[in-house]
Amino acid sequence: LDGFIAGPKPTIKEPLGQGGEQLHEWVLKLEAWRKPHGRYGGETGPENDYMKEFFNRDGAVIMGRKMFSGNDGPWKDDPNADGWWGENPPFHVPVFILTHNKRQKVIKQGGTTFTFVTDGIDSALAQAKDVAGEKVVGISGGANVIQQFIKAGLLDELEIHLVPVLLKGGTRLLENLGDAKLKKVKVVDFPSVTHIKYHL
Amino acid sequence: LDGFIAGPKPTIKEPLGQGGEQLHEWVLKLEAWRKPHGRYGGETGPENDYMKEFFNRDGAVIMGRKMFSGNDGPWKDDPNADGWWGENPPFHVPVFILTHNKRQKVIKQGGTTFTFVTDGIDSALAQAKDVAGEKVVGISGGANVIQQFIKAGLLDELEIHLVPVLLKGGTRLLENLGDAKLKKVKVVDFPSVTHIKYHL
Repeated sequence: LDGFIAGPKPTIKEPLGQGGEQLHEWVLKLEAWRKPHGRYGGETGPENDYMKEFFNRDGAVIMGRKMFSGNDGPWKDDPNADGWWGENPPFHVPVFILTHNKRQKVIKQGGTTFTFVTDGIDSALAQAKDVAGEKVVGISGGANVIQQFIKAGLLDELEIHLVPVLLKGGTRLLENLGDAKLKKVKVVDFPSVTHIKYHL
Repeated sequence: LDGFIAGPKPTIKEPLGQGGEQLHEWVLKLEAWRKPHGRYGGETGPENDYMKEFFNRDGAVIMGRKMFSGNDGPWKDDPNADGWWGENPPFHVPVFILTHNKRQKVIKQGGTTFTFVTDGIDSALAQAKDVAGEKVVGISGGANVIQQFIKAGLLDELEIHLVPVLLKGGTRLLENLGDAKLKKVKVVDFPSVTHIKYHL
């Protein structure tokens, strides 16, 4: 609610910074989140249906290097580290990682591949579109990567999952956006989260 | 959308700072806003009904000195200045102004009175409650005054009128709130604005 998508001082133990996990409580309880993460159970119903559809839209995902392998931790300075995503990552589609370090594509279980892109966001987008087919390309984060795509005019849609949490500090999403203009196209309100969709 | 309730550099010509007027376009077109401001016409319908009820809830209003008489302008250093509210201000209820300068109560047309309170927010609230009767006491602004009330645990309800405008700078509302916790109680979405009501 106060604009931060992660709290202050992200670490390997608190990748979303101090208090940042509160932002995701609403989704962690849903089957739509638990299933791709290899966990049993979870709530079903309209909130879950909404997020199931949301997650299923992506045919490919783009993320930044820090989201892939963390800000610190034992692999911080290891350009070959896999990060925290494990052997069966929750994406289940090809993932393109923006990085300065060239490395070979990594094939994981469950349909996730990690491809490392060293020549910028346009290249990552072109590669992701190639494999996404009829589905969309999702920009996963972090904030800086999303901002780069918005500033370059390459983002079509932004969806904010608004929760009444005040983090008081951390990483803001909606800054460094150049001259971007947003148009609200849809609001879907559930007890624990309000989804607001914008077109750019 | 990026958290600012006024843009950068407020002046007498742009009291809401650079670009800040964009935040209010949705309400300026409504009859519910135009009528108390002494203007004819304006849109009616569900958006208007909602705001009419919103405005009519207040039995008294509290505001800061800067909201009353501006940040600059010819009256900047004049402790007796009336500010920009004219002879028939839009409040039509008693208004309590937090200030460091003692002065006599001012009686305007249309039911608005300006009472100057020099002994802090608790005193202003007690005086406002006394005259509000069955109606509520509205905290008008600016941000600093709202923050003081929230931090002191004196605010029961906060309603955000969210518009897809990025001001890129200015005055933020949701900071300096102490340990305040918010609970979302209602979302009402219209094409040009999304109202989100929180209880504290």
